[in-house]
Amino acid sequence: MKILTFGEPLLRLKPPDHLRIAQAASFEAAYGGAEANAAVSLALLGDDAAYLTKLPANPLGDAVLGSLRRFGVDTSRILRGGPRLGVYYFEKGTDLRPASVVYDRAGSSAATAKHGEFDWPALLDGIGCFYFSGITPAVSGELAGAVEDAVSCCRRLGIPVVCDLNYRAKLWAPEKARAVMTGLMESVDVCLANDEDFNASLGIRAFDGDLSHCIDQADSFRAAMREITKTFPHCGTVASILRNARSTEEGDWMAILLRDGRFYETPVRRVRAMEGVGAGDAFGAALTHCLLRGDGPQDTIDFAFAASLLKLTVAGDQNLVGEAEIRSVMKKSGGSSFRR
Amino acid sequence: MKILTFGEPLLRLKPPDHLRIAQAASFEAAYGGAEANAAVSLALLGDDAAYLTKLPANPLGDAVLGSLRRFGVDTSRILRGGPRLGVYYFEKGTDLRPASVVYDRAGSSAATAKHGEFDWPALLDGIGCFYFSGITPAVSGELAGAVEDAVSCCRRLGIPVVCDLNYRAKLWAPEKARAVMTGLMESVDVCLANDEDFNASLGIRAFDGDLSHCIDQADSFRAAMREITKTFPHCGTVASILRNARSTEEGDWMAILLRDGRFYETPVRRVRAMEGVGAGDAFGAALTHCLLRGDGPQDTIDFAFAASLLKLTVAGDQNLVGEAEIRSVMKKSGGSSFRR
Amino acid sequence: MKILTFGEPLLRLKPPDHLRIAQAASFEAAYGGAEANAAVSLALLGDDAAYLTKLPANPLGDAVLGSLRRFGVDTSRILRGGPRLGVYYFEKGTDLRPASVVYDRAGSSAATAKHGEFDWPALLDGIGCFYFSGITPAVSGELAGAVEDAVSCCRRLGIPVVCDLNYRAKLWAPEKARAVMTGLMESVDVCLANDEDFNASLGIRAFDGDLSHCIDQADSFRAAMREITKTFPHCGTVASILRNARSTEEGDWMAILLRDGRFYETPVRRVRAMEGVGAGDAFGAALTHCLLRGDGPQDTIDFAFAASLLKLTVAGDQNLVGEAEIRSVMKKSGGSSFRR
Amino acid sequence: MKILTFGEPLLRLKPPDHLRIAQAASFEAAYGGAEANAAVSLALLGDDAAYLTKLPANPLGDAVLGSLRRFGVDTSRILRGGPRLGVYYFEKGTDLRPASVVYDRAGSSAATAKHGEFDWPALLDGIGCFYFSGITPAVSGELAGAVEDAVSCCRRLGIPVVCDLNYRAKLWAPEKARAVMTGLMESVDVCLANDEDFNASLGIRAFDGDLSHCIDQADSFRAAMREITKTFPHCGTVASILRNARSTEEGDWMAILLRDGRFYETPVRRVRAMEGVGAGDAFGAALTHCLLRGDGPQDTIDFAFAASLLKLTVAGDQNLVGEAEIRSVMKKSGGSSFRR
Amino acid sequence: MKILTFGEPLLRLKPPDHLRIAQAASFEAAYGGAEANAAVSLALLGDDAAYLTKLPANPLGDAVLGSLRRFGVDTSRILRGGPRLGVYYFEKGTDLRPASVVYDRAGSSAATAKHGEFDWPALLDGIGCFYFSGITPAVSGELAGAVEDAVSCCRRLGIPVVCDLNYRAKLWAPEKARAVMTGLMESVDVCLANDEDFNASLGIRAFDGDLSHCIDQADSFRAAMREITKTFPHCGTVASILRNARSTEEGDWMAILLRDGRFYETPVRRVRAMEGVGAGDAFGAALTHCLLRGDGPQDTIDFAFAASLLKLTVAGDQNLVGEAEIRSVMKKSGGSSFRR
Amino acid sequence: MKILTFGEPLLRLKPPDHLRIAQAASFEAAYGGAEANAAVSLALLGDDAAYLTKLPANPLGDAVLGSLRRFGVDTSRILRGGPRLGVYYFEKGTDLRPASVVYDRAGSSAATAKHGEFDWPALLDGIGCFYFSGITPAVSGELAGAVEDAVSCCRRLGIPVVCDLNYRAKLWAPEKARAVMTGLMESVDVCLANDEDFNASLGIRAFDGDLSHCIDQADSFRAAMREITKTFPHCGTVASILRNARSTEEGDWMAILLRDGRFYETPVRRVRAMEGVGAGDAFGAALTHCLLRGDGPQDTIDFAFAASLLKLTVAGDQNLVGEAEIRSVMKKSGGSSFRR
Repeated sequence: MKILTFGEPLLRLKPPDHLRIAQAASFEAAYGGAEANAAVSLALLGDDAAYLTKLPANPLGDAVLGSLRRFGVDTSRILRGGPRLGVYYFEKGTDLRPASVVYDRAGSSAATAKHGEFDWPALLDGIGCFYFSGITPAVSGELAGAVEDAVSCCRRLGIPVVCDLNYRAKLWAPEKARAVMTGLMESVDVCLANDEDFNASLGIRAFDGDLSHCIDQADSFRAAMREITKTFPHCGTVASILRNARSTEEGDWMAILLRDGRFYETPVRRVRAMEGVGAGDAFGAALTHCLLRGDGPQDTIDFAFAASLLKLTVAGDQNLVGEAEIRSVMKKSGGSSFRR
Repeated sequence: MKILTFGEPLLRLKPPDHLRIAQAASFEAAYGGAEANAAVSLALLGDDAAYLTKLPANPLGDAVLGSLRRFGVDTSRILRGGPRLGVYYFEKGTDLRPASVVYDRAGSSAATAKHGEFDWPALLDGIGCFYFSGITPAVSGELAGAVEDAVSCCRRLGIPVVCDLNYRAKLWAPEKARAVMTGLMESVDVCLANDEDFNASLGIRAFDGDLSHCIDQADSFRAAMREITKTFPHCGTVASILRNARSTEEGDWMAILLRDGRFYETPVRRVRAMEGVGAGDAFGAALTHCLLRGDGPQDTIDFAFAASLLKLTVAGDQNLVGEAEIRSVMKKSGGSSFRR
Repeated sequence: MKILTFGEPLLRLKPPDHLRIAQAASFEAAYGGAEANAAVSLALLGDDAAYLTKLPANPLGDAVLGSLRRFGVDTSRILRGGPRLGVYYFEKGTDLRPASVVYDRAGSSAATAKHGEFDWPALLDGIGCFYFSGITPAVSGELAGAVEDAVSCCRRLGIPVVCDLNYRAKLWAPEKARAVMTGLMESVDVCLANDEDFNASLGIRAFDGDLSHCIDQADSFRAAMREITKTFPHCGTVASILRNARSTEEGDWMAILLRDGRFYETPVRRVRAMEGVGAGDAFGAALTHCLLRGDGPQDTIDFAFAASLLKLTVAGDQNLVGEAEIRSVMKKSGGSSFRR
Repeated sequence: MKILTFGEPLLRLKPPDHLRIAQAASFEAAYGGAEANAAVSLALLGDDAAYLTKLPANPLGDAVLGSLRRFGVDTSRILRGGPRLGVYYFEKGTDLRPASVVYDRAGSSAATAKHGEFDWPALLDGIGCFYFSGITPAVSGELAGAVEDAVSCCRRLGIPVVCDLNYRAKLWAPEKARAVMTGLMESVDVCLANDEDFNASLGIRAFDGDLSHCIDQADSFRAAMREITKTFPHCGTVASILRNARSTEEGDWMAILLRDGRFYETPVRRVRAMEGVGAGDAFGAALTHCLLRGDGPQDTIDFAFAASLLKLTVAGDQNLVGEAEIRSVMKKSGGSSFRR
Repeated sequence: MKILTFGEPLLRLKPPDHLRIAQAASFEAAYGGAEANAAVSLALLGDDAAYLTKLPANPLGDAVLGSLRRFGVDTSRILRGGPRLGVYYFEKGTDLRPASVVYDRAGSSAATAKHGEFDWPALLDGIGCFYFSGITPAVSGELAGAVEDAVSCCRRLGIPVVCDLNYRAKLWAPEKARAVMTGLMESVDVCLANDEDFNASLGIRAFDGDLSHCIDQADSFRAAMREITKTFPHCGTVASILRNARSTEEGDWMAILLRDGRFYETPVRRVRAMEGVGAGDAFGAALTHCLLRGDGPQDTIDFAFAASLLKLTVAGDQNLVGEAEIRSVMKKSGGSSFRR
Repeated sequence: MKILTFGEPLLRLKPPDHLRIAQAASFEAAYGGAEANAAVSLALLGDDAAYLTKLPANPLGDAVLGSLRRFGVDTSRILRGGPRLGVYYFEKGTDLRPASVVYDRAGSSAATAKHGEFDWPALLDGIGCFYFSGITPAVSGELAGAVEDAVSCCRRLGIPVVCDLNYRAKLWAPEKARAVMTGLMESVDVCLANDEDFNASLGIRAFDGDLSHCIDQADSFRAAMREITKTFPHCGTVASILRNARSTEEGDWMAILLRDGRFYETPVRRVRAMEGVGAGDAFGAALTHCLLRGDGPQDTIDFAFAASLLKLTVAGDQNLVGEAEIRSVMKKSGGSSFRR
């Protein structure tokens, strides 16, 4: 069964180490994007994953293709053309200084693609699961239209849809997000919601907005998750990561899965993130992997949580770990052992 | 006397060494642009140089500011705002493989600036020379309008105008270029024209288009230079570099200055370019430096030519050399000596 | 109002990452020095900052100029000449291994400058505040004389003087330091004193010398601060950072301001320093910025404290942060949020 | 039509720039091998290329997979298992110092694979062309047996076989090579022979062994090529590159194709190689590409020659160029133009 | 008195920073190996240390020689020849992801050396102490034989023998290890045993196998240490490091020395390891240094413990610190001070 | 027989690639110095070489020690102490831009050593040859005195003395150099003289000063060499490299040896230098190696010339090549072959 993820890829330009943009004589280059990251995670977990987007017909577009094929992602559905590849400049933070992002993605090949360019019945032929995040419809009205077409087509064809709400304040306002996302949620089977996603994307309040105390407000999160399943009855599965952030790197994390009306939860773990990007994508991909395989809900949330924690130890957008490594982290209670 | 240069700055992203974009795990970052390069050259030669553009109000825009101030360029006239900083990806070539460029400059803060944002009487207050290249009007119709306003204002105020024709095939077609540039040339005092510039920008044929034989067609270049002064009588000074290119790095170079009806020429020199970007900007800036100082025409062309040759030995867009180094190259007949 | 800072700049050579000098095949190069750092901080905060020193007339001196101009510091008062630029080799420590420094600054252009080379009435013309640290008079007897001339001239002209005591055991002995610094303090308006500075520079005992317990001895620090204002009545403002250091990177920090006889204090914050250099300079510059702007004393110490904490997250000597970032850290109680 | 190439991949470890192994604090890592390089070239030219080998089931094996998939090579036939990935340390030479190689490939997964592990009827199912170089049978007796099985199977199935003789003196002696290669040549359709290959692999003398004068002995090369077609009548096509090497980087190159009894030749071109590895693989792949497409013989040899010259400008083992770039080099007589 | 250490050196290839092997475009190269590391530590502490191994006669072997001579290790006894230098690929872990190692050491010059190649009476001439770790006999049966010959010869000549049990699960099974190590222990004077070494190498159970709780089981460790001295009466000295590992980097550490029937112990210290390799080698070398100098047992264990903690702050295999730095860490109770 | 070389070592700081100092965010670090380079060359050729100098007792001094011991140089005679290690900043040139050097060596430990610190009878005990260059007496009057003491002592003890005149215009004026060097030449047995050395150090005119035409003036060089043997009859052997420099990298080179009244010469070879530093030191060391071994004069000059040419292909100050590589270059007439 092939899983199709759909979104906009970006060239990520990052100053070396913790340098600021003004200090950088070079940028480390990586290619990412929420749904591309999810596709890579799925492929590394052994799934048949395909990615859909529109890439410029230039060496940057080729480089994105290569970055996906390298890990076994099927890129044969990708459209080529349009003006440019979107870019984001990423400054790693540390301690009291948060990471920061300068987006330069306006006018990209994906953002300027017309929704009519995507021939969904053909694109979804042979697809067993469709995955997108809230970033895709935020990129442009045309892409929002394309996602609408896609999920309608999925619903018609009985293809399950996974949606990571993934609200991005720099891309759209809550009002706009809610208008679009609540419509899409009608066709979503599995919903991932973190932090501000509940409120910004769906208008459901999950906590007081203070990221340093999410776990302390777990009840409120649980209520919000249940509220999603009530508001969008097609959506029977909701998953969420809760954090008590202590600094840019340190925090306590836990995850909750609501499935068929019951909650499944992980213990709280103390983590120190080497790089904070992509943990949500790793979580969503691993969750999808388990759900499609028919794993039990407790094993599913434990596995997806361990996958997202491992992402915190991997540089770049992609969660370059395998199933055995994830299982090993699931089992570990305390210090790690160095096998040699 | 302050010299004002006007144009669009770009972030240049270059794979390390001679790597291709598809091979690059990082990009070297430099900030350049023809007129910014000229401003830096002028400042390093001791002139009071200012640069005018519009920069986004983000860390990338700050980085451009810093790259200019660092070498003493006055950045106080620069506008801030707009969507983004333009980018170009630069692959260094070698031997049979030419250098190549992927432009990603559409929609930049400079390109989307309205011509009315530039208050020329105020901006030109205290300015003794105005410098632009043909890239600026090629960037957008608004910038073309801004240059028209600027040179009209200069003509009114008696400020001499230097124009490096600098035709860029990836930015506009010859027909479009000629329509704009021939209009601007009515107010230009000093014109720099190289290679295809003659024909593409002004419709004056200087050679057969084969870059490996320009010097062999020097007479034809001389005739084209003279034709410029006839067609645009306000323009009494034309300078040009002629090349017999042998490979991406190697070639024979010479320069010709036409001033007040007489030609002044340099000997032919064999060069091996470490990096081919910015030699024209270095030439234009050094020529302007000499003309404004009142140097004799032979010394002027010799100095400007040596400056452009030295640029071939310096990485990045900017010609980071001083007057003494240029004079030393002017004197050298053969091998260079290593003083220690 | 222009602020003039005065001191010796240094080339800092640092092995990559945490490598030791014996392991280094290359050194990262940065240009710093307490007063140069302060000038850059002030310029980045929007102040009109100028730096005064003497630099060799060689490419290293030019590089220092560039590193200052880049961030908007006025370098027009700087003298050129003399034998060399001072150097310091810096090994970053970690955990139980402290950072270490090998100074190679003897015989520098600044250290060998004659005090008579500094024409203070001219240099201080148009200056609204004079800033130096105890490193400057420690560099050489001539520079000590120059600082004496400067503060006398300031007192005569009514220019307020800020002095960061900044005792350096590798530059002079406490006896020598006290002899010079107590004299200078007669003309100082604002005094910054940290750790061993109280005793080594002024002979006033603030704590038992154990850096792992400064905050626990806050009363003793407060008494010492008050003692400074008593001993040097011209000095009505004293500020200090107190630390409980736990390892090379980790510790608890707080700051105290004594102004017009009252103490203003920040809460204690747990920090993890990526790089420990320059936090005092960032503190001094931000404090000066607030005092000159007429901010209230509580806001002043909160702002200066947040600025110094942010410096711990920035590589190099300079605190490359802006006012908005500092204000954002001031507000944050716990974990940091990643806006995208 | 799918093309299958078969051989041993290697991790190439190269000191940065021109450093010697004893100077290297790091090694650039690339994955190559003659037949892997050919597969990448074919894929980049738009062919459906697959690679066959045996890779260790560890992250190094995974990295090889990724390096091939990245450029579109089908890796689905590759066996996994065995002890290790072979390595070669590569020192780039310059001027009078030749490049040098330290092989560390003994005991690799490919070298220790049993010939019976390769199920040729299944592996060759759907294959339209089989490509190998003389390195593969040189790696081990088992691999020599595997190649024998493969070419027999090809002959039976009517699959054309391309063989690049590629003699490697560090892998086997001429006597051993001749014994094996003359047997294999009975089933080879297209043979690539360069320099010492003629004599070392087939016992046919093409020149006096002096690489600085190959072109001067072109007649002798032509005679040797014809001799191949006489000795191995199944082989109707022979191609060869001739060089007058002047230094490690510089030389004159030309290529000759013998096809159906007629010679087709390129002009002599002066080249300067940035990196001398992989030009033969690029030549072989491009030749195969043209022959399979049915290009005329003159266009075939011109195209293959241009492809191999372009490889000299690309770092690493793989010829990362496309058809348009090759065609552009074919047309160029002299200096290269920088399009922007 | 010269100390001879004996073992297999390895080229360590490590991706930059925390990158995974699949992400690495380069590898940092370092030369190490337990006994080579110990020799370097001894030399840096001022001892006359020699290293014995067999190295290939190629540039990699030369590089190992250089890496040892550089720090003053006597390499004159080293044999040259054999097929290759062993390699290990090292991925640094972080937080929940443990470090991982891919060994590629089979067939190395050391592993394939015949035990008869080592002429012990000659090699041990003038040697005052012989040092090896359990890795050496694990490398090959021949090396195990060589160690047996060596310790017999030492016993005959009255040369004290230090053995770091250093069990490596990737090299041999516990049964094999016990059979060899218990025989060797008959001639060992000083034994270092950590973590699983007790059980895997000697069949003596020291703890429940959970590395996150070793210190909590200190009594059990003490009993196991005493058991060693009972089982192997020639061995009067046993030393061990105990850890409560909290993450890949963080943990609590302490050390225990059993000498002449009495225990000497260090306090527990919280550490954060920058790099976890080589702390045991640093511990063993420093312990040997103190024992040979005749230091008291408490000072010995304090010094060796501080040396091993400092290794956690140094990149690479070797503990590049001097006696003064170790003594300074011994004295420190809390935060470290930055002397400048 | 041990050879002792004597001089000042320097830390060489070089911007990466061809960057200028103002562009450098880092410096590559290497340790060199003419006589240290010669000692390394001798050790790599298998000679027993020792180096004498005075090094600061800090990590920089340790690093110099390590850089020498690594290649087998005996460092046991080196004095420790004094203020600092000398530094030189090195900008690689290219084509028309010459390499340039900023010396920062004043006040170094070597330069401030007193001549009385060198106890020559003890230092020369067991020494069979003494080697110095004209840089050593140029560093300071004290070092000049030390060299005088050394060569007197050598003459008394019958130890042959090799002197590379090595004039450095940035260290002393010709008048000063001649006064010192002509005195020292009374005790020199073998003299190396290149380019301006003849005139600047000894007042003997060898050519017109134009480095682009030295070979064309070979007769004049031969006469000057003969003049040396006449003026300093103790000196029976003179060797010189002659160059026709064409650019910073390219030139024609040849070498001449005058021994016992006869000239021995190499053919002229076209070279392209990757890095121009240290060729003279490589020449001097190889010549010394051959003379001490008793090689014939033609073989001696051919070998020394090939060694110096190979140095042009090696980065850094040291000629990291072995005897076999040098012999291979001696044999080669044209293009180099890549053995694999």
